[in-house]
Amino acid sequence: MRTYLECIPCFLRQSLEAARMATDDEEIQSEVLKQVMTYLTSISFTKSPPEISTEVHRIIRSLTQSEDPYKTIKDASNTKVKNQYAHLKKRVEQAEDPLRTAVQLAIIGNVIDFGTTTRFNVDEYLKDITTKPLDDAAYQQFQKSLDKAHTILYLADNTGEIFFDKILIEELVKQGKQVTYVVRAHPIINDATREDAEFAGIDTIATIIEGDEKQEYSAPGMVLPAASQHFMKLFSSSDMVISKGQGNYEGLSDVERDVTFLLVVKCPLVARDIQSKVGTLLLKVKQ
Amino acid sequence: MRTYLECIPCFLRQSLEAARMATDDEEIQSEVLKQVMTYLTSISFTKSPPEISTEVHRIIRSLTQSEDPYKTIKDASNTKVKNQYAHLKKRVEQAEDPLRTAVQLAIIGNVIDFGTTTRFNVDEYLKDITTKPLDDAAYQQFQKSLDKAHTILYLADNTGEIFFDKILIEELVKQGKQVTYVVRAHPIINDATREDAEFAGIDTIATIIEGDEKQEYSAPGMVLPAASQHFMKLFSSSDMVISKGQGNYEGLSDVERDVTFLLVVKCPLVARDIQSKVGTLLLKVKQ
Repeated sequence: MRTYLECIPCFLRQSLEAARMATDDEEIQSEVLKQVMTYLTSISFTKSPPEISTEVHRIIRSLTQSEDPYKTIKDASNTKVKNQYAHLKKRVEQAEDPLRTAVQLAIIGNVIDFGTTTRFNVDEYLKDITTKPLDDAAYQQFQKSLDKAHTILYLADNTGEIFFDKILIEELVKQGKQVTYVVRAHPIINDATREDAEFAGIDTIATIIEGDEKQEYSAPGMVLPAASQHFMKLFSSSDMVISKGQGNYEGLSDVERDVTFLLVVKCPLVARDIQSKVGTLLLKVKQ
Repeated sequence: MRTYLECIPCFLRQSLEAARMATDDEEIQSEVLKQVMTYLTSISFTKSPPEISTEVHRIIRSLTQSEDPYKTIKDASNTKVKNQYAHLKKRVEQAEDPLRTAVQLAIIGNVIDFGTTTRFNVDEYLKDITTKPLDDAAYQQFQKSLDKAHTILYLADNTGEIFFDKILIEELVKQGKQVTYVVRAHPIINDATREDAEFAGIDTIATIIEGDEKQEYSAPGMVLPAASQHFMKLFSSSDMVISKGQGNYEGLSDVERDVTFLLVVKCPLVARDIQSKVGTLLLKVKQ
């Protein structure tokens, strides 16, 4: 997905938010906005938002001298959902169709996001799970792909959310699938890294790889020009690709292979691109 | 009121909106954002938002070659409220306290605004008028000032809204007050100019002046460094100053004279500065 003009104010809103997480010094926060604006005057709008975002967040980290401005928020999300894990797991186990419930939960987990303007409350979504069902046709399509798949490449998105992913991966493993879980090589916004995936214990049920392991900085979305050879190999050879979240969608929306996107639609531009509405819990199989 | 870091994304959101009103050419819209960002890297945050906004909108008008990007919206607002005028007027005439209702309506008229992110529906507010009463103490303070006043300087804000102003001015004139109605010298956002005030017939009940008549461009708020000598003379000699809207508040919040502000609080920074909440219909007498 390309970057739209609307992304400009959004990048700046996010830059200010991130700068404030990293420092209380208004001079530095102001310098962040100025340098980000200078960078944004030079961008090509044909690039995807995560590609632009990589440099935006490099500027923020550099000026605030903070390697990971979202660290506190990330740890809080991980801890919060870790405490919900047993309850969520039980919900899946007791469900009529555990896989379906696990997919729903994996999408709801994507509510946790500090990269977007719209913020939803994950607990509200969990309460409403029965009133926000999955699209039947899309779920059947997903099941059909899954039945034929043995190897699955699963692209992670955010911290906290990874515990929801864990529950879905456990269902996939139960069905004999072999899952590779793709995280970011470096901290970027509140996206999950290997450390987070290991904190969630996903390393015991799936192989964890960094999709961009050779890059100096991570993008907040899977961007193929930044992908490692190892990732590219798996991306073409895996029977199925499951991609979580908007950032990965923005990076992969135009690739030439089938991808199952699981995400909460949080941005009106993504909504338009994916033909949905802001707030939707979306399972979409791109052919 | 100073400009805050949060104003940066907001200026850019507004720039995109204005550029899109003026042209469908995405290249030009993109150039607007780039030039506005270049300007914003150089600003002093001690200036008020309307001062910064003046140059932002000069860039927009210049690049889009549109002298008045908001013209269509302004005319539509004027026509819409013109059609509501007779009904609103009747509401005031039939009210228990016509002045109080006229003040309430004048504030509700400030809902019409294209300079802010938050957009409210004026019809919803008109429906809820009884559930959103004025602050009693503030209204009494206003009445006390009014009782002693003969000359009133009334600072206009937006098109459409001016018909609500007309109703309040008519009540003031009924009480024998002499009103000078201050508009912008040049089109800026959806603010009212002399042409609009005359369209509303305010020239038949008040003296209309341009507060910034000597300036090449108008700010979307009364900024004293840009005020004409004529305005400054009236500003110090008038018995009472009534100021409509956020832009005028941002320009006058720190001046050394008593001012009665009538506005709908639409921005969280103004809300903090004026010690209120977004969405409030505010009558505030600054001493």
